Amino acid sequence: MTKRQSFIPISDQSDFPLENLPYGVFSPTPDKAPRVGVALGDQVLDMAVLEAEGLLEGTKLPSVRVFDQPTLNAFMELGHEAWASVRKRLQDLLANDTPTLRDNRDLRARAFYAQSDVVMHLPVRIGDYTDFYSSKHHAFNVGTMFRGADNALMPNYLHVPIAYHGRASSVILSGQDIHRPIGQTKPKDAQVPQFGPCKLFDFELEMGFFIGTSNTLGNPVNVDEAEKHIFGFVLVNDWSARDIQTWEYQPLGPFNAKNFATSISPWVVTMDALRPFRVPGPDQDPEPFSYLKAQDHWTLDIKLDVLIQSETMDEPHRIARSNYHHLYWTPSQHVAHHTITGCNLQTGDLLASGTISGPEKEERGSMLELSWRGTEPVELPGGETRKFIQDGDTVFLRGFCERDGVRIGFGEVAAKLLPSKGV
Amino acid sequence: MTKRQSFIPISDQSDFPLENLPYGVFSPTPDKAPRVGVALGDQVLDMAVLEAEGLLEGTKLPSVRVFDQPTLNAFMELGHEAWASVRKRLQDLLANDTPTLRDNRDLRARAFYAQSDVVMHLPVRIGDYTDFYSSKHHAFNVGTMFRGADNALMPNYLHVPIAYHGRASSVILSGQDIHRPIGQTKPKDAQVPQFGPCKLFDFELEMGFFIGTSNTLGNPVNVDEAEKHIFGFVLVNDWSARDIQTWEYQPLGPFNAKNFATSISPWVVTMDALRPFRVPGPDQDPEPFSYLKAQDHWTLDIKLDVLIQSETMDEPHRIARSNYHHLYWTPSQHVAHHTITGCNLQTGDLLASGTISGPEKEERGSMLELSWRGTEPVELPGGETRKFIQDGDTVFLRGFCERDGVRIGFGEVAAKLLPSKGV
Repeated sequence: MTKRQSFIPISDQSDFPLENLPYGVFSPTPDKAPRVGVALGDQVLDMAVLEAEGLLEGTKLPSVRVFDQPTLNAFMELGHEAWASVRKRLQDLLANDTPTLRDNRDLRARAFYAQSDVVMHLPVRIGDYTDFYSSKHHAFNVGTMFRGADNALMPNYLHVPIAYHGRASSVILSGQDIHRPIGQTKPKDAQVPQFGPCKLFDFELEMGFFIGTSNTLGNPVNVDEAEKHIFGFVLVNDWSARDIQTWEYQPLGPFNAKNFATSISPWVVTMDALRPFRVPGPDQDPEPFSYLKAQDHWTLDIKLDVLIQSETMDEPHRIARSNYHHLYWTPSQHVAHHTITGCNLQTGDLLASGTISGPEKEERGSMLELSWRGTEPVELPGGETRKFIQDGDTVFLRGFCERDGVRIGFGEVAAKLLPSKGV
Repeated sequence: MTKRQSFIPISDQSDFPLENLPYGVFSPTPDKAPRVGVALGDQVLDMAVLEAEGLLEGTKLPSVRVFDQPTLNAFMELGHEAWASVRKRLQDLLANDTPTLRDNRDLRARAFYAQSDVVMHLPVRIGDYTDFYSSKHHAFNVGTMFRGADNALMPNYLHVPIAYHGRASSVILSGQDIHRPIGQTKPKDAQVPQFGPCKLFDFELEMGFFIGTSNTLGNPVNVDEAEKHIFGFVLVNDWSARDIQTWEYQPLGPFNAKNFATSISPWVVTMDALRPFRVPGPDQDPEPFSYLKAQDHWTLDIKLDVLIQSETMDEPHRIARSNYHHLYWTPSQHVAHHTITGCNLQTGDLLASGTISGPEKEERGSMLELSWRGTEPVELPGGETRKFIQDGDTVFLRGFCERDGVRIGFGEVAAKLLPSKGV
């Protein structure tokens, strides 16, 4: 990759260089209508202004406006050729050797905002939200805790990319805080279940991707065509009430334990930006069925961090790191498996990975694993310890890719746990 | 109830007398825009025409038009006072002692269509689809088959209204046929899983209700307020690929086995129409937690039939009957439980009941139960037998309420199983 420079000054450590150009939805001030923006350094580029000024003409955009919209859906459904053509135009327009925007002081004043000044919104109108369970390390850790190491992985695990349908309405934006949920639990030694605030509140380190172009009902997506349907990725924190989950999950899976909130990061990093950070997909033994075998078996090298900050701490402290490439199943396999019985994916659907744990102890993507079900408390600076998330704790997930001197990032997804509102 | 007559002739056996007035979405001809309609006898009343003519003025409708729309959502989100005021107006306008419509030949010609002439559409833009598991008889039957009668019900069953998140994108309208899905299965005696067409294809007799008014994230709906959030009910056939389900469902529940199609009936029978058919809710022992204990513990007396017609049969044959009141958990308990951890229900969400089996053998709501996992084939007229659904079979679900000489019905949900498209 040749590193092209923008006329907008961008720090070396910024998540948003010219190679990234992630999409989000923002309002310049709280009273102004949401529109599509692109992050560049510490700035937001107002795509609706570019569109209105005719600076996107000649790309593969339609005549109707797609950026003067409260979600990315209209742009996402145009497909990968339109996405690529707009990306190329933006990289030209924003380069320091292109005078169009650089030398137009008035237009620059109208098109750029400081990220710190704007209000971000949920970027996508999410139709359906699906959560996979694609980290073998996570499945093994959790299985070992509950069933012992010999029976840790279910017999289907290495054949089926396990997933469940999640709750789309409660996918929320980073920064929206969450109250500790109440619900039914049954402690191991209790004779009868209890009703009250969740006691084992947890995060899950995940990533998810948004479907750009849909498939029709009854027509599975071929695994070799899957990548074209993927618009881009975000960080996902799949908040989990472990004690509620343990009591409710049989036989139909988690429900109340997960449906109160799932937090995502505001900037959608596109598949086009991520392509240079593709790496070979994981070894898979036994060999997957044909519908899961891609000619190009790829995954992504995305470095991930989990940080926590309690109310007594001055700054977030890293408690885990991981990497997207630890997942056993790849993004293309997620799409192919999701649609194999004919399920129709639609523009705006979110497919998350499941907790991304790695092979090492410090690569565990949940408190459940980090504290090994509460038996090995995690130490925080200042002497506090954590078995699970406490009221007042803020959890941060961050991610970035780095290769050949180019670094692109995802920003972060953060939220604070507030006390229960009571029964 | 006093039985008021309409100037539209309605057969005694019609599902759609003046006491019903269910809402749907239709196009008068395939090229015309969808709009909201109300079923009356064998007619459809075009609500957009009534609205445009000013005949709904003085009700609690807003000044913007809500019926000249491709879904019911705009009307549904107005809330129960608006629904009741429009219902009252319609019952007045359509009564044989009201001349307004009765004597206006031109308006009648524009406002009414024969149901047999119009094209029906999915009535609601569904945000999230949830499926409960609220028939204790069904849970007991399935549990007995797989774990034996002593362990049939999971320990949580009588405490937790078990549910899972389903797939909203693949909820389809009655009449849209389905191809036999392909996927992974693992027959009991096989060493390794197989990939190919589903062999154990099944229906599930269910009903579902649509959420009219939403609750905000973090604010559970009180069980005594739940009824106000319910707009109306439809018949639901939750198609299931049993062999795919058996192999995939642990530990996170059914996924591919259910997400290829869920069929619903086109007419939404309102909570207002159903209120006269409320009956006391089921005995619940142990006593439910406070958040599930309604002061008014009601369910609905809705008679249900399952019919099947193979390609060699001249007409549908009833293979099962059941009743909504067999469910262990009530509609209000569904709403209260769904939101207890703070989940936000939104206008258009569909909450289905799960398979509605009753205590008797002929009241089993799936082929899995009717044929007892294939060991007791169901006999059809003409000598055919069925363990599960075969290619070419059409499955019909029908339902109605009857009391004091008033009968209101749901019409039907029907779909045919077409052969697999192949691997």
